Amino acid sequence: MNVLIVGAGAIGAFYGALLAKAGAGVSVTCRSDYDYVKRHGFLIDSDMLGSWSFIPRQVLRHSSDLQGTADFVILCTKVLPELDRVALIRDAVTAQTAIVFIQNGIAIEQEIQNAFPDHDIISGLAFICCNRVHPGHIHHLAYGRLTLGDVSGTLSEKTLQLSVAFNRAGIECIASENIITDRWQKCIWNAPFNPLSVLSGGLPTLDILTTQEALVRHIMQDVFNIAKASGHTLPNSIIDDNIASTYAMQPYKTSMLLDYELGQTMEIEAIVGNALRAALEVKVDCPYLATVYALMKLRELKLR
Amino acid sequence: MNVLIVGAGAIGAFYGALLAKAGAGVSVTCRSDYDYVKRHGFLIDSDMLGSWSFIPRQVLRHSSDLQGTADFVILCTKVLPELDRVALIRDAVTAQTAIVFIQNGIAIEQEIQNAFPDHDIISGLAFICCNRVHPGHIHHLAYGRLTLGDVSGTLSEKTLQLSVAFNRAGIECIASENIITDRWQKCIWNAPFNPLSVLSGGLPTLDILTTQEALVRHIMQDVFNIAKASGHTLPNSIIDDNIASTYAMQPYKTSMLLDYELGQTMEIEAIVGNALRAALEVKVDCPYLATVYALMKLRELKLR
Repeated sequence: MNVLIVGAGAIGAFYGALLAKAGAGVSVTCRSDYDYVKRHGFLIDSDMLGSWSFIPRQVLRHSSDLQGTADFVILCTKVLPELDRVALIRDAVTAQTAIVFIQNGIAIEQEIQNAFPDHDIISGLAFICCNRVHPGHIHHLAYGRLTLGDVSGTLSEKTLQLSVAFNRAGIECIASENIITDRWQKCIWNAPFNPLSVLSGGLPTLDILTTQEALVRHIMQDVFNIAKASGHTLPNSIIDDNIASTYAMQPYKTSMLLDYELGQTMEIEAIVGNALRAALEVKVDCPYLATVYALMKLRELKLR
Repeated sequence: MNVLIVGAGAIGAFYGALLAKAGAGVSVTCRSDYDYVKRHGFLIDSDMLGSWSFIPRQVLRHSSDLQGTADFVILCTKVLPELDRVALIRDAVTAQTAIVFIQNGIAIEQEIQNAFPDHDIISGLAFICCNRVHPGHIHHLAYGRLTLGDVSGTLSEKTLQLSVAFNRAGIECIASENIITDRWQKCIWNAPFNPLSVLSGGLPTLDILTTQEALVRHIMQDVFNIAKASGHTLPNSIIDDNIASTYAMQPYKTSMLLDYELGQTMEIEAIVGNALRAALEVKVDCPYLATVYALMKLRELKLR
């Protein structure tokens, strides 16, 4: 099983390292850490699974440099308007390649489906707390569960194969038949906590929740309503469940806050903007989410 | 005509200096700049009215130190939950004293009315751009119009007398019979632009308006709806008028943004919180204003 990880940041390197552990031949593309990783590979430092060295088969600047073919191309970059996801992978996709993305956001499938209408396309969601500490040094702090599902809605051989490999490497990986619904489910948490952590000026999730639970619930309800109107009815208890589990979590810095603090582009469009565009299509009013989105756009404008 | 200005910051010093110019005997209380002002008085540096020195009759640490009596006690502090406005003025109020406040916010009358049920109480609104540059040095950049109105709703002699003095000093001062409605009218502008300037990370008003006009309008509409349900119907054109005049303004740093940048307490409760509490009373839904309020509370929490 040959795998190409496109975008070996914290998430890409971690899941790539797991597949290598499970016996796959794993190559990676890197941008900023290319020189270091080419020479030294990765050190994966997991609080749950121990530490190990991950030396990719090939370390590439771009997927077009790949020698041989990949059974799986796994895209792990952020989802940003200025990043052409299709261009990042196109040159490494052959007839038998399954295309996987482990990425955040809502409605991020169509772009890939349009470009590769005849391929297996597997949409992946990671529930993980994982940081790049230094070039080539990845710290996995907690969680790690992965959900994979074919965008076609029926589970493919490829998805099952990948799922087995991740489970073998020690990480729970669920093969889902409703990955789009799963994305909305994740958005219930992401849509409030990612923007609020930035707009509050850097508060951890627990402070946000203890002082402004009502606002968090309103934003979650907006997302719930959009999902429902879009044909993805989530469990009735999902808001209460997310509130309860966030109270139980360690105070947590969201990925958007980390990006913000590093001056990097945030996934505002993938997580919030796409949800709002879905709301427009199904004509659902979502004032809380819309306000948060507008404010994040102002923050982004100020950053530039 | 003897006047005591309580809280001679930029606004208090400027309007006090105008009354002195018009012939009144003006004393002041100062907090942080007491030592400097006691020795040197104020330099008023107005782009509209020229520069002049304002030497108060008495410079006091507290209103209880006043020698003699005041015809007018004019309160010019910010309106903050931790600031007891009644305690600040009580000792300087005699039977014939009219109590004036030139302050921002909604529903800030009751506290003073309860404490002084038998006095003339005059509510004042300043439309001004005026900064304290250094101790004792006040820079008046633009505008300056004042609206004064008795909270009783009928114009008193005292209000007319004060209004004449301000006009004589070169500043437009309107005596209004609907000062509560005027406060809601001012809130239409304050409620969006003050918080958004902070939440955006410091954008001037024009950037906010050009990129997020829809959000600004939504917040204005929330305020319009609360005012209407509270019995203060504003002109139908007020939102369009505010949008148009803000486009025509120089890019402007709001008072809340200035406070935020100086690490000082912001008037969140007086401007936004009180409007929301009014909404609760009259059962008006205002999701945009509520979101902005919750986010400002998070910012405030982070600042502490």
